[in-house]
Amino acid sequence: MTVEKATGQPRVVIVGAGFAGLAAAKVLAKTPARVTIVDQHNYHLFQPLLYQLATGMLEPADIASPIRGIFHSRSGVYVQLGEVTGVDFDARQVLIEGDEPLAYDYLILAAGASVATFGIPGVEEYGFPLKSLAHSVRLRSHLLRQFELAEIDPSLVDEGALTVVVVGGGPTGVEMAGSTVELFHHVLKHDFPELEVGRSRVILLEATDHLLPPFHPESRQHAVETLQKRGVEVMTGQAMDRVTPNEVTLKDGTVIKTRTLVWAAGVRVCPLADALGVEQTRGGRVVVNDDLSLPGHPEVYVVGDMAASTQEQGGLLPQVAQVAIQGARYAGKQVKARIEGRTPDPKRFTYKDKGIMATIGRHAAVTELPNGPRFKGALAWFMWLALHLVYIVGYRSRLAALLNWAWNYITYDRHARLIFDPVEASEPAKEPVRELPPAAPVARAEADPVPAPQERRRPG
Amino acid sequence: MTVEKATGQPRVVIVGAGFAGLAAAKVLAKTPARVTIVDQHNYHLFQPLLYQLATGMLEPADIASPIRGIFHSRSGVYVQLGEVTGVDFDARQVLIEGDEPLAYDYLILAAGASVATFGIPGVEEYGFPLKSLAHSVRLRSHLLRQFELAEIDPSLVDEGALTVVVVGGGPTGVEMAGSTVELFHHVLKHDFPELEVGRSRVILLEATDHLLPPFHPESRQHAVETLQKRGVEVMTGQAMDRVTPNEVTLKDGTVIKTRTLVWAAGVRVCPLADALGVEQTRGGRVVVNDDLSLPGHPEVYVVGDMAASTQEQGGLLPQVAQVAIQGARYAGKQVKARIEGRTPDPKRFTYKDKGIMATIGRHAAVTELPNGPRFKGALAWFMWLALHLVYIVGYRSRLAALLNWAWNYITYDRHARLIFDPVEASEPAKEPVRELPPAAPVARAEADPVPAPQERRRPG
Repeated sequence: MTVEKATGQPRVVIVGAGFAGLAAAKVLAKTPARVTIVDQHNYHLFQPLLYQLATGMLEPADIASPIRGIFHSRSGVYVQLGEVTGVDFDARQVLIEGDEPLAYDYLILAAGASVATFGIPGVEEYGFPLKSLAHSVRLRSHLLRQFELAEIDPSLVDEGALTVVVVGGGPTGVEMAGSTVELFHHVLKHDFPELEVGRSRVILLEATDHLLPPFHPESRQHAVETLQKRGVEVMTGQAMDRVTPNEVTLKDGTVIKTRTLVWAAGVRVCPLADALGVEQTRGGRVVVNDDLSLPGHPEVYVVGDMAASTQEQGGLLPQVAQVAIQGARYAGKQVKARIEGRTPDPKRFTYKDKGIMATIGRHAAVTELPNGPRFKGALAWFMWLALHLVYIVGYRSRLAALLNWAWNYITYDRHARLIFDPVEASEPAKEPVRELPPAAPVARAEADPVPAPQERRRPG
Repeated sequence: MTVEKATGQPRVVIVGAGFAGLAAAKVLAKTPARVTIVDQHNYHLFQPLLYQLATGMLEPADIASPIRGIFHSRSGVYVQLGEVTGVDFDARQVLIEGDEPLAYDYLILAAGASVATFGIPGVEEYGFPLKSLAHSVRLRSHLLRQFELAEIDPSLVDEGALTVVVVGGGPTGVEMAGSTVELFHHVLKHDFPELEVGRSRVILLEATDHLLPPFHPESRQHAVETLQKRGVEVMTGQAMDRVTPNEVTLKDGTVIKTRTLVWAAGVRVCPLADALGVEQTRGGRVVVNDDLSLPGHPEVYVVGDMAASTQEQGGLLPQVAQVAIQGARYAGKQVKARIEGRTPDPKRFTYKDKGIMATIGRHAAVTELPNGPRFKGALAWFMWLALHLVYIVGYRSRLAALLNWAWNYITYDRHARLIFDPVEASEPAKEPVRELPPAAPVARAEADPVPAPQERRRPG
């Protein structure tokens, strides 16, 4: 927007159209404010299903919804495509790459997280992360291409062409490993009758002693047993040392021949968090007040993965969708109250745990509700299915996902197993993979502890 | 396949998995032969619907089916991913880029057509053709990006950011123009409330005096009137002189400011046809005998767009799907008879015209059956819809396309309007666009006349 409205209408800018950005915008729609969402993509991405795209179950439009389609033209919510590079807090302007600054009266920062490689050699160059559509489409083509190459030259099987190493035992890693082994054994086995698909390997590597750390030991055990029964080699307590295009080397010296390292081990804040010049935790998350506002800037809120939001009783909240959505709704309501001339909620942000779930594969998942009830197996899987259908944005995507899942459920088919990645034909156009500073050897940013005040750093 | 079977099993190689290649393979499935389809992609592409991908209606997997999924593992049909660069007719080997040659006893060449630019300056660099998934995804992102850019800087509308010039008045051009104007007026108008989408232009340019040359004048008239009523500017008898990134210049000197030239004006044979070193027509198509075999090589058949197959009464057959399918079935049956020790059909290949159809947009199409009956408007459109549903390969794609069309029909929504083209972030990875030799200034390769014998050239 080059023309600035001189109407006195309050201007709210929301940076990021992930779970948090959308949730905040929905609260602020149809208020007197002019709300502008800025995102580098024209779509909202349902990130938790990226692994289904990577394994040929869904197509990009099934999990990506055009942002402009989500907000009705009379909602007062506008969309601007652009990459936010920083914020001029004094001038109250958001800085956009190659474009004019965008003025705000209230700002909600919800730019999310990117990939952390923890400085492990080779991960940035050869790892396949799972944070964007481009990542997943690239991984899908790569996986399928290995089978094509191995059928032409079967000696490549010995070179690890059919071996996939998934690093990270959180939900993403578990889901990716489970879905990959199903793709191999139910689909590609039939696609490649002359290839010994039985010699394919899917290895799930976790540096700590357990998969799914936040889950109950019984759920973890169920996940491990189910994965193993389906053919995944689960290796816990095994850290990675380095990766080359042809092999992964573990800390204990073990060498695994593979061309495919799926990197689901770590997230790091987005580059924007570092560019703000404000106080950050060791993991890079932006330190916020109890009401999610930025210290010294009551007109700026930080929510979602980039915020170091805390529990009432202390302790950083995890970087998960529910925290992002609840925080964004809270911040949206604070802004809405102030716009409408009301007093903002004096109560601090409180996260209400709605439970955790992870799917392992067909008829297999683990679900834990707060304060006790646990489910596993088929029941938990149907719960997962129902919840994700409800959460996928937009009716059409929901219909399409349901159709695809029903089709896959009945036939085991993966219709979207296309080798179609224009990037490979030219340059590897990876999205930026960022490293943690060497001083921060945390295993997972989710486990980023609340730093003591003296540990906090103030850049600049 | 590096291991050559020494079983005496006849080896049939089919080059290309388009309409022709698939049709031939289906005839040859479950015969004693070992059939291998070689294609540079792992999917069969339903090319006639590429314009729906480009305009946000369908996703790649809706119109692309994995070839390996089409043939059951016990069908005797195998698939090899690879780019065929030539044929050693004496050694009976197909040459594959970066791979070992593939031996055959019978060969069916069905490698299709590529894009012809007729040497018009700028088309190769700046034109958007519509022959591959990559083309369509690139065009979709480009179109949507122009709207995003123009909303940020409205002066770009004067620069032609919202102007699309479609060159070529055949079915592809008509369908693309009709679908683009619907996308603009029914979807993007709501997506961009602050942009004067009413100032967008869709121009359909045709060098001859008529759209849809093979149709009856009444059908043509209906197409023109419907397109105009919906907002397409139809310019017939107007040839293009050149294109730059910012404008198209016509032969009469008219300059149209635009950043989007959709090139639907010409096809040319695939590069493989030129690499064979055999007799070709002016348009590059391979001269074949009446039974579609290659002169001097009764074990080689050429079918589909790359073959200069003729009518019984003389005259080249058009490069359309029906000719490809019927020719491939005929050639497949010839090979099948010879494999099974029977005498091949002594009758020459005869093309049976099943009629022609072109869709203009919602509730609007023209359909002509052989020998008379013509339909237009909603009835013709429903006929088009039914036929395309039947022809889309694979039940799941059919279901998905039906769902998408039903959704679009009810809501006018285009769910797949994603700006997602990793290529643009790196290098422009255009598929090769080939030029006709300067000596062949034909308007459309479809209209390639049967050359008199002295016009035929024998390269090499």
